[in-house]
Amino acid sequence: MKDMDEMYIPTYDDVLAAHDRIKPYIHRTPVLTSSYLNALTGAELFFKCENFQKAGAFKVRGASNAVFGLSDEMAAKGVATHSSGNHALSLSYAAGRRGIPCHVVMPRTAPAAKKDAVRGYGGIITECDPSTSSREAVFARVQAETGAEFVHPYNDPRVIAGQATCSKELLEQVEGLDCVIAPIGGGGMVSGTCLTLSNTAPHVQIYAAEPEQADDAYRSLKAGHIIADDAPVTVADGLKVPLKDLTWHFVSHHVTDILTASEQEIIDAMKLTWQRMKIVIEASCAVPLATILKNPEIFAGKRVGVIITGGNVDMDTLSWITK
Amino acid sequence: MKDMDEMYIPTYDDVLAAHDRIKPYIHRTPVLTSSYLNALTGAELFFKCENFQKAGAFKVRGASNAVFGLSDEMAAKGVATHSSGNHALSLSYAAGRRGIPCHVVMPRTAPAAKKDAVRGYGGIITECDPSTSSREAVFARVQAETGAEFVHPYNDPRVIAGQATCSKELLEQVEGLDCVIAPIGGGGMVSGTCLTLSNTAPHVQIYAAEPEQADDAYRSLKAGHIIADDAPVTVADGLKVPLKDLTWHFVSHHVTDILTASEQEIIDAMKLTWQRMKIVIEASCAVPLATILKNPEIFAGKRVGVIITGGNVDMDTLSWITK
Repeated sequence: MKDMDEMYIPTYDDVLAAHDRIKPYIHRTPVLTSSYLNALTGAELFFKCENFQKAGAFKVRGASNAVFGLSDEMAAKGVATHSSGNHALSLSYAAGRRGIPCHVVMPRTAPAAKKDAVRGYGGIITECDPSTSSREAVFARVQAETGAEFVHPYNDPRVIAGQATCSKELLEQVEGLDCVIAPIGGGGMVSGTCLTLSNTAPHVQIYAAEPEQADDAYRSLKAGHIIADDAPVTVADGLKVPLKDLTWHFVSHHVTDILTASEQEIIDAMKLTWQRMKIVIEASCAVPLATILKNPEIFAGKRVGVIITGGNVDMDTLSWITK
Repeated sequence: MKDMDEMYIPTYDDVLAAHDRIKPYIHRTPVLTSSYLNALTGAELFFKCENFQKAGAFKVRGASNAVFGLSDEMAAKGVATHSSGNHALSLSYAAGRRGIPCHVVMPRTAPAAKKDAVRGYGGIITECDPSTSSREAVFARVQAETGAEFVHPYNDPRVIAGQATCSKELLEQVEGLDCVIAPIGGGGMVSGTCLTLSNTAPHVQIYAAEPEQADDAYRSLKAGHIIADDAPVTVADGLKVPLKDLTWHFVSHHVTDILTASEQEIIDAMKLTWQRMKIVIEASCAVPLATILKNPEIFAGKRVGVIITGGNVDMDTLSWITK
């Protein structure tokens, strides 16, 4: 959507403005701890629970910042996106709070439950065929007809500034963190984390956690340029999308390392979290714990912030039962 | 274990003493709300989340009060119980914190996962045959050999005074409650709720929620005397046990009404809570929400405290998938 030349890199002032802007529409989510998981990992883990966030995921932070940052004139035309995941829910929720339309382009083959969830938050769905060309064509038509503002799920400075409010809260809630770890897909949450920590706590190390089977960010970091995979398959379905120019900027400058975990390790960590912490988390947000369990030498003895990104799970197909 | 004649009925002073005694060993659990469930029920629901409690259930309150109220001489011989559920875990946990043995008599046919969980908290298991006569014989032998103090899961004034600290906290956390609702099995949590509310907030109504298929407390309340069922079958497996003299005293004097829900209504409410609140709760603690959804005329417009009693769930046999 933007050329590299005109890429606007959000600043910490944008984060402060975002937090003021979105506070009425988001939860300040709690930080939970587990003496069992601390004993198991040898680390002190502080789970920032965005699964309790409005619309069930951190994405409502970025979406709300984009929606409530629009001028009245722009807002009147609504917002639009193409996502079948948490960003679509979050943008629909935020648009609903502002009383403006939210157009979501989704493949007609998307699960009925996902369509119902978007509609439940007031989103207006336009269906496309399950191909990139159809999605782009339908999306272009929706935008042309409505004039709605496109809000990308992660490669957007307004969205990244919004996601950055999560680690801003975490730093206010927990003192003396040694590192923070978050799952990485497109890199929106990790970029927000980089934005906040590099400005306010540059000594805190930033780790990203990624499925082995969708390890494009890992390979990008090692290669020094963006590598995008075509349709990787992983149970962590929020983490399939590739880095883009803006998120690559933050990841390449500020991330200490990217750690990966296998599908079974992710499923085990997800089940363990449900069993021991009594919270419902998506497979995507089990990836950090899976990598902590796998790399104790990195985390033992440290105070580790762990971003639990969301809790929107299909309860009928839990991976440890149906897989 | 006690004659009616010598039944000691705990007082609110016992509750205050219990809270002071157990505070170092329990969590002050959070109260969560859900705008979705409020809209759905027309009520304002305040969920007291004992699923986040130590050992995963409110039972650690009563168990800790019993364990830490023992003289050093009595404590040295340990404690004992016959339970394969949350009371066994909780008593094992509390005994471990005091550094004394906890003997648990369990049928040899109990699931390995339950035995592992008890051992995980340090409990010493003695197996019996899966019959009441074997359990009683084995338990008598364990008590004779060890001199351990028997702590009944609910029909014990120390246990009830401990459970009463849950609604004491709830009243400190939420102002202006109109009623409180809790699941009822043996009646330990409901008795504790009665003990606290009748002394400190007698205008707050107390409802108990019970599975239709294990509705012995409901029928007891209507009949005016204890009715005990033999081995009822329900997905809410914490609620199969009957009232006893001490819990009947509180239930019969202070409970406004007992409401029941079908198996399907319980399963639906459990799944809804996991989906919408992102918390793992046992089927037993979905019974209150199921009855609220079924009886909107009782709860609409009211501020309702809902006790979420525990979160110890077998993740491999979730009722909406495997039933």
